[in-house]
Amino acid sequence: MALYVLSRRLSTRSTSTTLLTLRFTSNYSSSSSFREERDTFGPIQVPSDKLWGAQTQRSLQNFDIGGPRERMPEPIVRAFGILKKCAAKVNMEYGLDPTIGKAIMQAAQEVAEGKLNDHFPLVVWQTGSGTQSNMNANEVIANRASEILGHKRGEKFVHPNDHVNRSQSSNDTFPTVMHIAAGMEINSRLIPGLKTLHSTLNSKSIEFKDIVKIGRTHTQDATPLTLGQEFSGYTTQVKYSIDRVISTLPRMYQQLAQGGTAVGTGLNTKKGFDVKIATAVAEETHLPFVTAENKFEALAAHDAFVETSGALNTIAASLMKVANDIRLLGSGPRCGLGELILPENEPGSSIMPGKVNPTQCEALTMVCAQVMGNNVAITVGGSNGHFELNVFKPVIASCLLQSVRLLGDSAASFEKNCVRGIQANRDRISKLLHESLMLVTSLNPKIGYDKAAAVAKTAHKEGTTLKEAALKLGVLSSEDFDSLVVPEKMIGPTD
Amino acid sequence: MALYVLSRRLSTRSTSTTLLTLRFTSNYSSSSSFREERDTFGPIQVPSDKLWGAQTQRSLQNFDIGGPRERMPEPIVRAFGILKKCAAKVNMEYGLDPTIGKAIMQAAQEVAEGKLNDHFPLVVWQTGSGTQSNMNANEVIANRASEILGHKRGEKFVHPNDHVNRSQSSNDTFPTVMHIAAGMEINSRLIPGLKTLHSTLNSKSIEFKDIVKIGRTHTQDATPLTLGQEFSGYTTQVKYSIDRVISTLPRMYQQLAQGGTAVGTGLNTKKGFDVKIATAVAEETHLPFVTAENKFEALAAHDAFVETSGALNTIAASLMKVANDIRLLGSGPRCGLGELILPENEPGSSIMPGKVNPTQCEALTMVCAQVMGNNVAITVGGSNGHFELNVFKPVIASCLLQSVRLLGDSAASFEKNCVRGIQANRDRISKLLHESLMLVTSLNPKIGYDKAAAVAKTAHKEGTTLKEAALKLGVLSSEDFDSLVVPEKMIGPTD
Amino acid sequence: MALYVLSRRLSTRSTSTTLLTLRFTSNYSSSSSFREERDTFGPIQVPSDKLWGAQTQRSLQNFDIGGPRERMPEPIVRAFGILKKCAAKVNMEYGLDPTIGKAIMQAAQEVAEGKLNDHFPLVVWQTGSGTQSNMNANEVIANRASEILGHKRGEKFVHPNDHVNRSQSSNDTFPTVMHIAAGMEINSRLIPGLKTLHSTLNSKSIEFKDIVKIGRTHTQDATPLTLGQEFSGYTTQVKYSIDRVISTLPRMYQQLAQGGTAVGTGLNTKKGFDVKIATAVAEETHLPFVTAENKFEALAAHDAFVETSGALNTIAASLMKVANDIRLLGSGPRCGLGELILPENEPGSSIMPGKVNPTQCEALTMVCAQVMGNNVAITVGGSNGHFELNVFKPVIASCLLQSVRLLGDSAASFEKNCVRGIQANRDRISKLLHESLMLVTSLNPKIGYDKAAAVAKTAHKEGTTLKEAALKLGVLSSEDFDSLVVPEKMIGPTD
Amino acid sequence: MALYVLSRRLSTRSTSTTLLTLRFTSNYSSSSSFREERDTFGPIQVPSDKLWGAQTQRSLQNFDIGGPRERMPEPIVRAFGILKKCAAKVNMEYGLDPTIGKAIMQAAQEVAEGKLNDHFPLVVWQTGSGTQSNMNANEVIANRASEILGHKRGEKFVHPNDHVNRSQSSNDTFPTVMHIAAGMEINSRLIPGLKTLHSTLNSKSIEFKDIVKIGRTHTQDATPLTLGQEFSGYTTQVKYSIDRVISTLPRMYQQLAQGGTAVGTGLNTKKGFDVKIATAVAEETHLPFVTAENKFEALAAHDAFVETSGALNTIAASLMKVANDIRLLGSGPRCGLGELILPENEPGSSIMPGKVNPTQCEALTMVCAQVMGNNVAITVGGSNGHFELNVFKPVIASCLLQSVRLLGDSAASFEKNCVRGIQANRDRISKLLHESLMLVTSLNPKIGYDKAAAVAKTAHKEGTTLKEAALKLGVLSSEDFDSLVVPEKMIGPTD
Repeated sequence: MALYVLSRRLSTRSTSTTLLTLRFTSNYSSSSSFREERDTFGPIQVPSDKLWGAQTQRSLQNFDIGGPRERMPEPIVRAFGILKKCAAKVNMEYGLDPTIGKAIMQAAQEVAEGKLNDHFPLVVWQTGSGTQSNMNANEVIANRASEILGHKRGEKFVHPNDHVNRSQSSNDTFPTVMHIAAGMEINSRLIPGLKTLHSTLNSKSIEFKDIVKIGRTHTQDATPLTLGQEFSGYTTQVKYSIDRVISTLPRMYQQLAQGGTAVGTGLNTKKGFDVKIATAVAEETHLPFVTAENKFEALAAHDAFVETSGALNTIAASLMKVANDIRLLGSGPRCGLGELILPENEPGSSIMPGKVNPTQCEALTMVCAQVMGNNVAITVGGSNGHFELNVFKPVIASCLLQSVRLLGDSAASFEKNCVRGIQANRDRISKLLHESLMLVTSLNPKIGYDKAAAVAKTAHKEGTTLKEAALKLGVLSSEDFDSLVVPEKMIGPTD
Repeated sequence: MALYVLSRRLSTRSTSTTLLTLRFTSNYSSSSSFREERDTFGPIQVPSDKLWGAQTQRSLQNFDIGGPRERMPEPIVRAFGILKKCAAKVNMEYGLDPTIGKAIMQAAQEVAEGKLNDHFPLVVWQTGSGTQSNMNANEVIANRASEILGHKRGEKFVHPNDHVNRSQSSNDTFPTVMHIAAGMEINSRLIPGLKTLHSTLNSKSIEFKDIVKIGRTHTQDATPLTLGQEFSGYTTQVKYSIDRVISTLPRMYQQLAQGGTAVGTGLNTKKGFDVKIATAVAEETHLPFVTAENKFEALAAHDAFVETSGALNTIAASLMKVANDIRLLGSGPRCGLGELILPENEPGSSIMPGKVNPTQCEALTMVCAQVMGNNVAITVGGSNGHFELNVFKPVIASCLLQSVRLLGDSAASFEKNCVRGIQANRDRISKLLHESLMLVTSLNPKIGYDKAAAVAKTAHKEGTTLKEAALKLGVLSSEDFDSLVVPEKMIGPTD
Repeated sequence: MALYVLSRRLSTRSTSTTLLTLRFTSNYSSSSSFREERDTFGPIQVPSDKLWGAQTQRSLQNFDIGGPRERMPEPIVRAFGILKKCAAKVNMEYGLDPTIGKAIMQAAQEVAEGKLNDHFPLVVWQTGSGTQSNMNANEVIANRASEILGHKRGEKFVHPNDHVNRSQSSNDTFPTVMHIAAGMEINSRLIPGLKTLHSTLNSKSIEFKDIVKIGRTHTQDATPLTLGQEFSGYTTQVKYSIDRVISTLPRMYQQLAQGGTAVGTGLNTKKGFDVKIATAVAEETHLPFVTAENKFEALAAHDAFVETSGALNTIAASLMKVANDIRLLGSGPRCGLGELILPENEPGSSIMPGKVNPTQCEALTMVCAQVMGNNVAITVGGSNGHFELNVFKPVIASCLLQSVRLLGDSAASFEKNCVRGIQANRDRISKLLHESLMLVTSLNPKIGYDKAAAVAKTAHKEGTTLKEAALKLGVLSSEDFDSLVVPEKMIGPTD
Repeated sequence: MALYVLSRRLSTRSTSTTLLTLRFTSNYSSSSSFREERDTFGPIQVPSDKLWGAQTQRSLQNFDIGGPRERMPEPIVRAFGILKKCAAKVNMEYGLDPTIGKAIMQAAQEVAEGKLNDHFPLVVWQTGSGTQSNMNANEVIANRASEILGHKRGEKFVHPNDHVNRSQSSNDTFPTVMHIAAGMEINSRLIPGLKTLHSTLNSKSIEFKDIVKIGRTHTQDATPLTLGQEFSGYTTQVKYSIDRVISTLPRMYQQLAQGGTAVGTGLNTKKGFDVKIATAVAEETHLPFVTAENKFEALAAHDAFVETSGALNTIAASLMKVANDIRLLGSGPRCGLGELILPENEPGSSIMPGKVNPTQCEALTMVCAQVMGNNVAITVGGSNGHFELNVFKPVIASCLLQSVRLLGDSAASFEKNCVRGIQANRDRISKLLHESLMLVTSLNPKIGYDKAAAVAKTAHKEGTTLKEAALKLGVLSSEDFDSLVVPEKMIGPTD
């Protein structure tokens, strides 16, 4: 919980942590010089070349967990830029000095564009409200805006709390940036990746529409279908994937927490602030964000993230199936199913020509496993809120954004480096189809089930073709066989 | 894979398994007499008092996994009754003998009503296509229909494959009954349970709308809100829960696999069969079922179940949060938070009067844990399909139906035995609120932040009230304090 | 929390719930007559033919969740029989009237043998401490012991709290029966099932030790190995499975909570009681149970169950891999890999002779999915304890016992109905091996990598054998080829 | 699959991808100059300032998934350094030119020390065998060793396959580095973090051993215990955590895959190579690594990782419970339980003095959620191997190493920044204890249960103390009350 609007208290504390600070920050700064920043705990040394302030520095030291790899995801940082820009804009309507407001907007825009990423060193594993990342944004924007206005870092000419965080609390800003970041990433990465994949699978389904092949159920030979029909199943799975994630977006868009401040009541905001800021965010992002109808829910729960993660988890299950099928249908070249020829992107082996490893399938299925795991992490985090605040926000955000990005990127990579180049191995497909004992079914109307069964059994036992067996048993002529056993007639209902 | 339409082959096999049969079936039958049933593997002994046939019996013996507790869920059995009734109806349009068709419809209706549950002994852990349960339904209905028409069990006057399973394959019937059962259970159990809970939470939110209480973030004291506002968060969570599950229903309703037969092509059905049977199912269930636009997807994947399970998982996360809050707010009676008084339903302890264990919260949160686990089981099953068929159908169905029922039942139980009877402990709430140091915030405009902070620090250090501290420090009068420190003014934005 | 030792208070409450009772209990009783039982809440109607008492009846009515399918697992009921027998034995050492003690022991023995299962109607979804199932056991044993001594049910000649539950609390009995039940089921079901499977896989590994076959990595053709080597991998996985579950047993055996009573302090027990009862349980079960060194941990956490479930989860991952391999290697008969011939247990299809569905693999992999899901449920339950008591005990117990039983049963079923009968399809294996382009590697020392590559590429491009390509390119003689290309020399390191 | 020993084939391919290359690599290099590297696919442009070669470059371009955040974890890179050093050492025994061998050892040592981290740009989401990261290591070490010997990058004086990867395949090196990295990180990060936490919890348990407090079960007031006893439960949980992870190490140490090469047979190695290299790794790491008894299992499954992850998942469940308790016991300062005073590390709020957010608990519990999620990802990956190779290696490694590091770091952070500074709020503890109605139990022996119950009920109803109620009812004297109601006597069994 943190309502920073009134914070100006400067207590004096011993600076005994300075040496520790120096050691720590050396990992994060190429500079060896420091300046003093202050918060209510007192002064603290901060690398001169960094824009962050005292609270960011304190978090760096108190949460030495996981290292730089575990930093808050960039989309969260950028969303803070968007939100702080919008907040300054709306705050000017409510009386914020326009000079300061415009400088904040300019600085926030730089954050939104990723230009100040190096000034956001904090890891996911901090306070569960994301307060420290909110303060990181406030401090960086305040210092940058101060510089824009000709003032020095650390002077707080533009104040991180009073100006940048005005009418806000970490408790409403962090859920708001979670929704902004998720909404943007889903629209800019995930859906385009899935759409591209869908389009190419659909093209393949059309390309392969006349290739009749053996079906397989329980991994065993079954009645035939076309390769195009088989790919139409994959196409449909990806189509529904897009539908699924889109069907969760209403609750992602319609639940901006901003305006709830510390506990959801909106204390220290003005009436209408919540609606105005949601409108500003919608304009800035071109996404239909709306203020949450119930701010208490919006702070205390992240069910919208659990729900969206459930859709991602479903997409992962779908893509796992598709990728598995493609690698198995492409297995070989000699000793597998060998019905598909997958594009060769890199050396599969230095020994054997023709060895193509389905590496794109592998990357994709690994992503699916991660997304399934993230879904559990998000669920555990989402279920463990207490009272007015869920304090698993950073892990929920981090996992969801990773899932979104990995699914989007890997769908695009899979499309580009695998699906687009898949060819049907027509000879192999035809050979397997005609060797299949399933085709015997076509003989039933002509020679009866018992004789048909005898044909199939003979072929199975002796390892011959159905035709050879039929002729051997003398149950029908070669011409009759050829006219009856036509897989192309087995791929749909009859009139 | 199993297309049973043509099955009449009667092979002869040694009956060396008869003794084994006797031992096995004695667990499932009070009778000690047996009759012979046959399938393509030959004859097999079946308890005389049971309607099932050879394939059911074989499954009983081959899948001795988990015992009766693990039987296929009843909603699946009932859905088979509905489907087989509809299939007979449509098959009559396509030429099925009306005498037989009507007897099948009558027998199937008995299955749909649960009257023949004792004749469905098979466990979930069988073939992954659910073929054996489909055959169980075919066999029971065939024998029962035969009896209706005056014939004996086992004679196959009405044939399980040729008549009951006509134009069907296990591969399309089982996914169809999965969708029917899930759609019905969600509508008859889950949504009513959630709606009741939502309604009562909403009533409580209104009942408690004027009770101002301390807020808590990070589990720590924060600014106030009303108890009604707090409950409005829970209410909203349950409202969205209903929205969430409803938003997944389109893909549950619009994807009836029936008509796809063995691999999705619809081999051995007539054109239009799929649409007609979906219409019949919709009429029978009063739910808007539609044939799947792509039968290949409908057999090979159960993404609709993974998606719906994701919604159930989200509901579980929501209810876990609500139940946790309620038990913590009701903790005490003396040494906890004690803001809520929960109804006393059973002896909590034989020693201490006033000890009320929040047992309904406990049952509900245990259900939530199970639902979260089931979601993973369903995801694993859903992601592991191969080619034209997913063969994790029974476990997917079983887990989803368990989640639906447990959530529906426990929401109803929680509403009835807990939420409905919750009372606010107004004295306690008021006492905590007025002891809180948070209220000092109201003094800022009058005496400034620094003096307000001094008041709060003094009170915290000395363990006194804010008022005592303020008067001691002489920063304002008793009257001023009372007029300024009014929690009721801190529960919303200002004009 | 419930310390029942002192409970004698009989309050009078309105019996307005009687009618409700009648409706409810009719589901659980064939009798239409009732008797009155009482607890501290007052009198309540109980079916005359049932041994349970007032608290069981109350739970039945208050927790109408899931129906009979969701009853507390039988191993828990039986473990209560064992524990209550042991408690009576030890309590006699501490002064319990031997007449009553012996009657309790006799009644408890009946519970331990499963003879009174019908008297344990409560579901898993009750109070999270399992108090109501503890009381169910106390009430049934008290009534049964009373009858043994010639007294009527409901008279409490033998008292459920004062006698049967003496020196116990639900808070220590329920975790104790969890450990007893898990220890027994692991030893009697899981380990034997795994050992049988291990033994048969090992036999197959030896049987197949001379069959050289193509290896597959990334699902693609690779260098050869023997089928015996391949099965040795499966054998090793199952061997380690046994090791894994055994390595968790110390914490299962060494943590009997009994003697901790309500919060772990052992209030209302005598010194030494905990050690004596653990000894008695060890004697009764022939398993090395020991009293927990820290009773606080034993009540407040069930980490031992989370740990053991982690081992089960690992076993599930192992068996999923083994079963997947076997069904893929057995795929076909014509259009799959076809290297293994799996036993035919039931009709796979009524159309196609030779179609064998790998149904045992399917049942097993479905079980694995369930076990993975249960692991998450157990983890969620295990992580959500509060203060002195974890109140997810029943769901933790239920999931773990289901996982244990399903894994044990399905391993045994898989062994008996699948692995034992697997045959190698030697012709197919040999054909695939010799068609493989991998064998070209053997030519490198003789003709150099470039020429060898040319041979492989030619064969791949033209669809011929390596030998045909080699002879066509004239790089070596037929005799040389035959002497060099010997897969049998490629299955191990060189001297 | 990749056996690189024989790779020298240099095919010529169109360099049409060069421009793409330039765009791509500009993200990874500050240089604008490039050199040509080659593999069997032909030439490719690589940034001049990077040591990697053609295959690394190709992977960079083909797997544009997730960005730099998703790079292969550093412990894997370092473990490659260790392994390649050991391999060179052993290969020299088998004939590798010592000049080259020593240069490889020197270059590999630099990798092991993390000096060349910038030359390992590949992401986790690549081929599932980790082949590309193995080649990355081979290429970097070959180029660096060539430089050491005075040759240019790209010349392959030291060859990545023939020299650095000699007698190795990706299929055995990657699982080997997984085990090395996991073994080292568990020993250097996780166990020390847990031991520190255990030690401090134990100290607190001793420090608090005489502080009697109210117990809580079901979150409700229960019989008393000491705060030391409560902390002893946490201490025991962490003690067992250490035991649990240690009990999984045998299967981590004893299963080095090295020597199995492509499919586990050890083709292209010499007898004894596997044992020698395991010995070398053991010496280098000071950990008891041993060659796997079965190499087929070691390549095709990663059950050891699933098992270890199960232990980490258990630790997460334990720490979640401990951290939750501590934040709830520290809740307040006025309106919570308030029994613990947690150290104040950063501003919790700018408004309210005394507000301490339990931020370390929050970071830790978020880590626990991630670890639980990772466990599912690892399980899914571990269960999906096919035939001779599991191709989910990178995601399994990445998740496990993240779990290990996050748990180790957050345990250490939690100890240092929270547990170490926890103080008991003795006044609050005492107040709550003496207000509790539970203490009435002590009166039973003196005045009987009925009168004792009357005392408690009166106190509960009237909101008075037990003593006040007792005196009001006149059941005993003030002196008697004081001598009987002694919580200190309720914290253990009686003699």
